[in-house]
Amino acid sequence: MRRALELARRGPEHDPNPRVGCVLLRPDEDDDGPATTIGEGWHRGAGTPHAEVAALADAAERGQDTRGATAVVTLEPCAHTGRTGACTQALLAAGVRRVVVAVEDPNPVAAGGAAVLRAAGVVVETGVLADEGRTVLGAWLPTVGRDRPFVTLKTATSLDGRVAAADGSSRWITSDVARRHAHELRAEVDAIVVGTGTALRDDPSLTARTADGSLAEHQPLRVVVGRREVPAGARLRGPGGELVALATHDPASVLDDLRARGVRRVLVEGGPTLAAAFLRAGLVDEVHAYVAPVLLGSGPAALADLGITTIADAVRLEPVSVLPLGPDVLVVATPLREA
Amino acid sequence: MRRALELARRGPEHDPNPRVGCVLLRPDEDDDGPATTIGEGWHRGAGTPHAEVAALADAAERGQDTRGATAVVTLEPCAHTGRTGACTQALLAAGVRRVVVAVEDPNPVAAGGAAVLRAAGVVVETGVLADEGRTVLGAWLPTVGRDRPFVTLKTATSLDGRVAAADGSSRWITSDVARRHAHELRAEVDAIVVGTGTALRDDPSLTARTADGSLAEHQPLRVVVGRREVPAGARLRGPGGELVALATHDPASVLDDLRARGVRRVLVEGGPTLAAAFLRAGLVDEVHAYVAPVLLGSGPAALADLGITTIADAVRLEPVSVLPLGPDVLVVATPLREA
Ligand SMILES: NC(=O)c1ccc[n+]([C@@H]2O[C@H](COP(=O)([O-])OP(=O)(O)OC[C@H]3O[C@@H](n4cnc5c(N)ncnc54)[C@H](OP(=O)(O)O)[C@@H]3O)[C@@H](O)[C@H]2O)c1
Ligand SMILES: NC(=O)c1ccc[n+]([C@@H]2O[C@H](COP(=O)([O-])OP(=O)(O)OC[C@H]3O[C@@H](n4cnc5c(N)ncnc54)[C@H](OP(=O)(O)O)[C@@H]3O)[C@@H](O)[C@H]2O)c1
Repeated sequence: MRRALELARRGPEHDPNPRVGCVLLRPDEDDDGPATTIGEGWHRGAGTPHAEVAALADAAERGQDTRGATAVVTLEPCAHTGRTGACTQALLAAGVRRVVVAVEDPNPVAAGGAAVLRAAGVVVETGVLADEGRTVLGAWLPTVGRDRPFVTLKTATSLDGRVAAADGSSRWITSDVARRHAHELRAEVDAIVVGTGTALRDDPSLTARTADGSLAEHQPLRVVVGRREVPAGARLRGPGGELVALATHDPASVLDDLRARGVRRVLVEGGPTLAAAFLRAGLVDEVHAYVAPVLLGSGPAALADLGITTIADAVRLEPVSVLPLGPDVLVVATPLREA
Repeated sequence: MRRALELARRGPEHDPNPRVGCVLLRPDEDDDGPATTIGEGWHRGAGTPHAEVAALADAAERGQDTRGATAVVTLEPCAHTGRTGACTQALLAAGVRRVVVAVEDPNPVAAGGAAVLRAAGVVVETGVLADEGRTVLGAWLPTVGRDRPFVTLKTATSLDGRVAAADGSSRWITSDVARRHAHELRAEVDAIVVGTGTALRDDPSLTARTADGSLAEHQPLRVVVGRREVPAGARLRGPGGELVALATHDPASVLDDLRARGVRRVLVEGGPTLAAAFLRAGLVDEVHAYVAPVLLGSGPAALADLGITTIADAVRLEPVSVLPLGPDVLVVATPLREA
């Protein structure tokens, strides 16, 4: 399984599909000595063969017989026929007799692979190095089974809930430490979204940077929502991810558009108008609120009107974690969905 | 010292003076066996004898000779002559040869007792059970050396910095756990202060309650600041601490008035207008910000205008602690004074 996880890590980190690795073993005749590897494969990204199929192809290329083999795979083989055919069928056709799995597939569409294999008489073992398996799957896991990207709303506020001073200046409310932390999140998502208000007022670059300030290897799409144009000299047109300008006010259509571009994880970085629009539409899965020990007394609040007039109607969140970051605090919380 | 601390605890918890205990010992002749207690005393509150003087009086009453004795005292004996005369002089006059102290006096006016004693040839040892000594001194310590009460500003806000919804309702933004915690703070202070806006809108009782909801033994003064009157049927006129209505808008004069009433610790519980007035006047020593994982999108912000227009002029605080309380977080922080 360690080798399978190693193979999985070769896959692309930012892809609509999960990173999966697979090793095919010919069990020792007397079931005692070390098994021989007869094929290896990993998933190279959307549209390419799944890890199991790649491993079977590798075995065929090596001239190895897969009948009676064991498949060690980091994610439960899929049972549905997508662009690449169901992996369970391929494993059965190849005569595999035993399958060892790290993480069970949480996807209600793809799941059931283990059951299909078992029904065909294959021995299936799951949960082997499951934690490490989940780590490799990373950002893919929370996006599973959704028909839209996973949305994280980020805010950076003073203790009195302001995202900028009265003159609109907001650099910087939070500390270096908190901002570095926020850059790590940027490097994990596929798209960063802001409204035109923020784009025009702050002229942000919306890049993911490493600790030394240089551009991270992966750059998320930079998405600006609203009718106004991003001016020619804007930093958003400088080095960084592709700039996507969406002349709409509808968060759902923003997500549709991004999904069509293969985006799985979206970070909405404000401002207050756009953040409120996503919340009103019920399209926020997680809130990352950086709170700094700063008082402002005026300036825009973190969120524009949500249409809430009385305390009983407040949007209640379930806290996930509270993390001190230098002088600041990061509160991660998820909206409680109404019954 | 343990006995001296026990005696100190008999003193009144809410008093402008510190709780201090003193034990007088006659050292064993050959300096080896257990010492004999010849006098005990503690401070019973402002205007009554200090612990050392009380212990000397106790020894006199018992007909004990204090010459050559050791005084064990929880706080460094004072060197200034207040309403009760300097304790160092009394100890010297009684012929005490050794003084053992838990906590050194942080008060720049009263301090220096140890130096005076040493200059007169007395052996002085400090820092014995200092932590426990500080615990007994409790809320008195941070008020030392100030010419006004120590002011804690409390806020209870949503993640987007609102203290109430658009219709003014604010019960409850924070959780049970956080509110119970806030009640403990109430029981520690001498006065709770709110503006008339809060008094009229919320009809609060401003009492300190125990976990079971009953009134705590000590009830702080209930202070309402502003020109409007607290109506006849208001909860503020019900069971609880004395109601003090101050028809002013000047935070400094509020503190003057409270100081004259022997108040050492004040808790300003809002609302936004009064909180901003205290901050603008530079009269906040500590901020207790309870932040709940709730989003409102509208409603009054925690603080009214502070006259700050740009981010460089923000009031920066030094965080003291970050404490998760059920789903909420309490951030305690102190304003950084300008150089
Ligand atoms: N501290 C922080 O975390 C943080 C983060 C971001 C921004 N900020 C601050 O926030 C301020 C900008 O606030 P803002 O509210 O103007 O920014 P915004 O939310 O970024 O932009 C608002 C604009 O986006 C467009 N828009 C997109 N979707 C919309 C919808 N559903 N409804 C209405 N309009 C929509 C509209 O522009 P069109 O007319 O072009 O369509 C609207 O004027 C700046 O001072 C900035 O510094 C702070
Ligand atoms: N969640 C929380 O922590 C919390 C705490 C408290 C209040 N609240 C909410 O806050 C809202 C009330 O806000 P508020 O700002 O009206 O309350 P406030 O600050 O309690 O009261 C404001 C009033 O106090 C008087 N005042 C005293 N000093 C003043 C000064 N220096 N400058 C101006 N006026 C001064 C004025 O009334 P006069 O005309 O009578 O002089 C003024 O209208 C309510 O919705 C309440 O629920 C929330």
